[in-house]
Order: sequence, then C-alpha cells, then structure tokens
Amino acid sequence: MKSPKNIPSPKGFLFSAVEAAIKRPGRKDLALIYSEREAVVSGMFTKNKVKAAPVKLDMKRIKAGRGKAIIVNSGNANACVGEQGMLDAIEIADLAAASLTIKPTDIFVCSTGVIGTPMPMDRIRQKITELANNLGRATIDDVAAAIMTTDTFPKVISKRLKVGNNSISITGICKGAGMICPEMATMLCFIITDATIEREALDEALQVVVRKSFNAITVDGDMSTNDTVLIMANGLSDNEVIRRGTGALTVFTAALSEVCYELSRLIVKDGEGATKVIEIQIINARNDRQADRAAFAIANSLLVKTAIYGNDANWGRFMAVLGYSKIMIHEDKTDIFINGLKIAGRGKGTGKDKEAAESLRNKEVKIVIDLHLGSGKAKVLTCDLTEAYVKINAEYRT
Amino acid sequence: MKSPKNIPSPKGFLFSAVEAAIKRPGRKDLALIYSEREAVVSGMFTKNKVKAAPVKLDMKRIKAGRGKAIIVNSGNANACVGEQGMLDAIEIADLAAASLTIKPTDIFVCSTGVIGTPMPMDRIRQKITELANNLGRATIDDVAAAIMTTDTFPKVISKRLKVGNNSISITGICKGAGMICPEMATMLCFIITDATIEREALDEALQVVVRKSFNAITVDGDMSTNDTVLIMANGLSDNEVIRRGTGALTVFTAALSEVCYELSRLIVKDGEGATKVIEIQIINARNDRQADRAAFAIANSLLVKTAIYGNDANWGRFMAVLGYSKIMIHEDKTDIFINGLKIAGRGKGTGKDKEAAESLRNKEVKIVIDLHLGSGKAKVLTCDLTEAYVKINAEYRT
Repeated sequence: MKSPKNIPSPKGFLFSAVEAAIKRPGRKDLALIYSEREAVVSGMFTKNKVKAAPVKLDMKRIKAGRGKAIIVNSGNANACVGEQGMLDAIEIADLAAASLTIKPTDIFVCSTGVIGTPMPMDRIRQKITELANNLGRATIDDVAAAIMTTDTFPKVISKRLKVGNNSISITGICKGAGMICPEMATMLCFIITDATIEREALDEALQVVVRKSFNAITVDGDMSTNDTVLIMANGLSDNEVIRRGTGALTVFTAALSEVCYELSRLIVKDGEGATKVIEIQIINARNDRQADRAAFAIANSLLVKTAIYGNDANWGRFMAVLGYSKIMIHEDKTDIFINGLKIAGRGKGTGKDKEAAESLRNKEVKIVIDLHLGSGKAKVLTCDLTEAYVKINAEYRT
Repeated sequence: MKSPKNIPSPKGFLFSAVEAAIKRPGRKDLALIYSEREAVVSGMFTKNKVKAAPVKLDMKRIKAGRGKAIIVNSGNANACVGEQGMLDAIEIADLAAASLTIKPTDIFVCSTGVIGTPMPMDRIRQKITELANNLGRATIDDVAAAIMTTDTFPKVISKRLKVGNNSISITGICKGAGMICPEMATMLCFIITDATIEREALDEALQVVVRKSFNAITVDGDMSTNDTVLIMANGLSDNEVIRRGTGALTVFTAALSEVCYELSRLIVKDGEGATKVIEIQIINARNDRQADRAAFAIANSLLVKTAIYGNDANWGRFMAVLGYSKIMIHEDKTDIFINGLKIAGRGKGTGKDKEAAESLRNKEVKIVIDLHLGSGKAKVLTCDLTEAYVKINAEYRT
C-alpha cells in the first residue's frame, strides 16, 4: 500500500471518522469526506438490479454533477429493507447537511455491510454532529479504515501530476474483499482531487479508467448491491480547466488510471482469504469480447482458483474452462503459459508441470493463454480460492 | 444409496473390474459392462468444446445406436493430450474387442480423471485380457466403485417396471463429485436395462430425463470435458417393443426418470466437500427460462453456498444474486422461503433469521423464491461450499 504521505494530499479536503457501533462496537464505522469548495462530482454505480437505497439516492444526486461531501458507513449495506432504506439514507444526508450547514443535495451517502437488516438509525443519529465537529481531526487513511468490512488492510493510493505549472494531487481509497465481480464500479471507491476539470471531462476519464481497473477484477463472481465509485474534483489546484479533447485530460486520465488500477490490484490482493494475485491474460482470441469472456470464465472457475492455491499447474482445467466459456477455441492451437513457462503447446502438455508448480509458489501469478485465432485480447485480475474464503463467508454475520 | 440387491439386476449383463494402477495403485480403476445380446444404445455427451478423446469416439459410434460393451477407467480423463488421445481410446476398444471377440465398433470407451496427462497405456494394455476374462466375477456395484474419482461412495440406483406382463429392470450407476454443471449429461453415468425398446424411443426418453436430472444440478459451475451418459437396452425381458407415442414409453420414461433423478441427487449429496443438499426452486418468474437462469445463478453463488454451509439465513445474498442474474425482478414483490419459513416478504426481512438459521442445520435445505411476475418455474439441486471443497481441489493431483 502506498501511503499518501509521500504525496501532498489534494488541497481543500477534510476528513472525519467516528464509532457508531453499526454492526458491533470497537471500531470507527462512520466517516465523512468534505470539500471546502463545491466540487465537480462524477460517479459510477452497481449494475445490480437490486440496489441499496443510498445507491439510488446518489444516482439521482449525481445528475447535478456537483457536491461537497460524502458520508459513508460500514457494517450495514442499507439494502433490501424496503422503503425505510431510502428514508434512512435521506435522513442521514439531512442530518449531516444540517451539521455542516450545507444543502442536503450536496451530500452523497454510501453504505457497505450486511444486506437486509434495517440501519440502526438511533446510533447513527447520535453520532452525526460529532462526525461533523471532528472534521479535520482525521486523515483519509482513517476514512479508508472506517469503510473496511472483511478487508484486512485499508487501501489508499495517491498520484501527482502537472497541468501547465500547477501540481495536481489525486488520492483514492476503496474497500473490497468479497462480492467482487465486474460490470460495475466495484465496491466502494472514493477519489478526491484538487484538479480543476469540467464535468464532462471528469465523466469521460472515470468511465475509461473504471473499465480497465475495477471492471477488470473478480474475486468471487458475486456482484454487490452497493458498488459505487465517486470522484470529487474541487479545483483548488488552480490549474487551467481540463476539458475534453485536450492533452491535459490525457495526462489526468493516465494518473487517475494508475490510482484506480493500483486500488483494484489491492482489492484482489485482499480478496477474502486470498494468498495470491492472479493475472489472466488472453491473447489472439477471435475478438476482444471473446477474450474478455474467456478471461473472466477462467478467473471465476473454482477449479482453476483452487489449483493455483494448491500450487498445482493443472492446465487441463484451463482447457476445460475455455471449452465451456462459449468462445471459439481450437484445442490444437492453444498455448498456455504459467509465469512465462509454456506449460501447454497446441493443446498438449509440455512436461513442465513441476517447474510451473514451483513457480506457483510466488504470490503473483501470471497466466497467458494464446488462442492463435485473431487479435482479441483481455486482462483480468483475480485471486486464489482458499479455505479461508469459505470460513469468512460462512461466518460473516455471526 | 439404494442397493440394487432388492431389485433383480437387468438380465444379460456381465461386469468386470480390475486394478490397472492408472493414477496410483491400490484400487480397481478399469471396468467393463458387457451385454450378452447386442443392445440398443443411446447417449448424451458434454457440450464442452474441449472434449476428451473417448467422448469424441463414442459420439461417432453412438450413431449406429447399437453396441455390446462399455469399457471405462478412472484416474485419467484422456483429455487434452493431442492426437495420441484418440489413438489410445481406439486401441483400448480394439484390445477389448479382441479379448471379447466382438467388433471394436460395438464398444464404447469412457475415461474420467486428470486432464492433460497421457494414458498409461502400458499398464492398461496388460490388464485388458484379465478384464475380459473376469467377466461375471464382479457386480455393477464394483463397476460403480471403479469409476469413482473424488466420490466418497459408489452410486447405484435400480427400478423395476412392468410393460404388459413383462418385468423390466433398470439399473444406473454414476460418478460425480466435481466439475458438475448443467448443459450436458453430467459426468459419467451408465444405465443398463433389459427392456425391449426401439432406438428412437430410447433417445427420446433419455433426453427428457437428463434435462430434469443431470442437467438440473450444479456443484461448482465447472463443466467437464468427459461427461457422458450411456444407456444400453438389450431386450432380454422380452416385453413387446416400446415405441414412441405409446403408454409403455411413458411408463418406461417415468422409471428411467426416477433412476436418473435419484442418481443426480446422489451426485449433489456427494459434491466435493458438501455437507448439505440444497434445492433451489424459483416460482412465478417471468418465464421458465428466466426461472432457470435465476435458479442456477443462486445455486452457483459462492456467497449463497458458504452462507448455507455456515447455517446463516443470509437472504440478502439471494436478493443480490437475483439482482445480477439478468432476469426481471421487482425487489418489492419478491418472497423468499427457507425450509418453508418466509424469511423475506416483498423484498424485506420478516425477522425470522434465527428460526431459519436453526432450520439450516438440516442436511437437506429447500429454498423457494417467489418472484410474483409470471408463471415461470425451475428447480435446481446443488450443495454447499466448504473448506473441504477447496482442500480437495487444491490437492487433486498431488
């Protein structure tokens, strides 16, 4: 984890985190990100049809493209609780707005945790004034810690870039661990920057970046009801406005991309029970879409994930997955590489199983599959499947 | 497991099983099913595009619709080994045919086990004469034991029916455990019957039956390269020929259906590391196809399977899966029942979590989800996901 301490924090953001004992006492679980100046805001949200109440609220509020604060809790997802969910999300925003003396519509609300249990509003209500009063007494690291659920470490990444003579900082935090699957902005991610950027340019940058980062990872193939990525740009770096179609946007997008890619890598690294980060690369597929499908099928295969956990270079399982992944495949053209070792050539083993198994002891595993059928390619990050994943998810609510 | 001992075995079949030490020594792993009279044969095979050599061979031979023997080994799948795989499968059939003095094309070859390792033909060659000579010295239970891989018990089901005044026996054996996913005839299943039945009627019966049994179960969502269901009907019961469109076919199909349903249930019960059989029933979906999709999405969700393993009535995970399963769903119309207890009504918890959790301690779990949107329905069997599944599959080849 890169600490943001090496890089100046984006100017004009304040943080706070308190303990509201939402799931259980003993840790800070309610946090606030506040921008002193109204910020341009972009967001991406889960594509799950069952959405948590705060997601629905934020999807409405994001239309204005502006805001000042994000209030977020862990321990309860505020999902599948009927109409009360929306009433609670709105009340949280209203109370925070009153304490901060800003408009409720300038606040985004996010929740993560158990689905189907009503929010413990009595405990949350009591804490919102304290949360607002404490602004500035916490760092973004504290917020990253407060949004953790089954995460084992907080996730913070910062980057710096120059636009003209102005230095811009970007800091992102996220939480992941389980229910990680693509076709959504994965789990909770908050990015703050002091860049001056127009709304449309920020939207474009976020969409490009999420596709190659949060939407290219999978832990368990389960898609959450709460996934949200929000980015706030408050303009305090005083750079010339970054607009669409400019070189400045390219530079900004590249830096944002590094932040999101590294965060998404941290999510996989911290996948529930994971011991290894696995990069699956498909090359020379019929087309990009087929490459994508194959990469995700392999990344989600329990047999592949358990084999890699067990340091078993069982490439036959890759072949089996390719065979059912509904892509074009010619068995006798397919090459498979594990950590650079050709383990199968033209669909047959090369006898390198032991060498490859040895290389699987690394914490980082790289699988390359060359289908020799076209020029489609895809890259997906995932992690191995271990007894600990089962244990964590069997005991999650106990 | 129902032993076929209560029910007379289908007339005219002989069995044999020997040890060829294909994966390792210490157990019988090469078996033969032989019909004294040429039988009508139907089959269904994996839809995986990567098919084991014997599957490809059998798919050719099944076109004739007749045969006398099945030779099967465990310990090696004879898949992903290049052209040698087909040469080996053909050689096995040829050697067995010579020993049995029948035509090679009257023999079906099946393999199950590790993918990507060439067949240890030296050891197999040595054993085929012994296998043929031993015909009649083994029972079908011995064959069921010889085809086991990670199965923990052999799977044999027998049924009896009457057509006119003639008694007909049907006995099925299968192996399952892992790589269990639908859209195929799941894993290896051999069914023998002394019924007199025309080829087309047998094909029809098998297809109807497999759809509701082997194609309605899932253990891990991984589809195998070797899945095969073969049924041999040798006509020794001397009943009037069962033809399409007759009541006799209906009676025969019903009995065959019971055999296959019970076998598929045994596969799930013996799913790798499983402690519970879970029936997922979707009712009142938009249509049957959507019901099917939802049922399989839930049955394959790691979060659902681990929650049930942990006796956690975490119905929020069902909602999240329904939300991403690409079906029509209205959160506020959805009811969820666990073992008959309404745990969520109109998308909201009913406060019965503890009671439902208690009921999850049963070895049989029944989930019913009422979508209140149409008349589509589906039923899928699966099992829970445990640390033992991970352990088995991490260590499979070691």
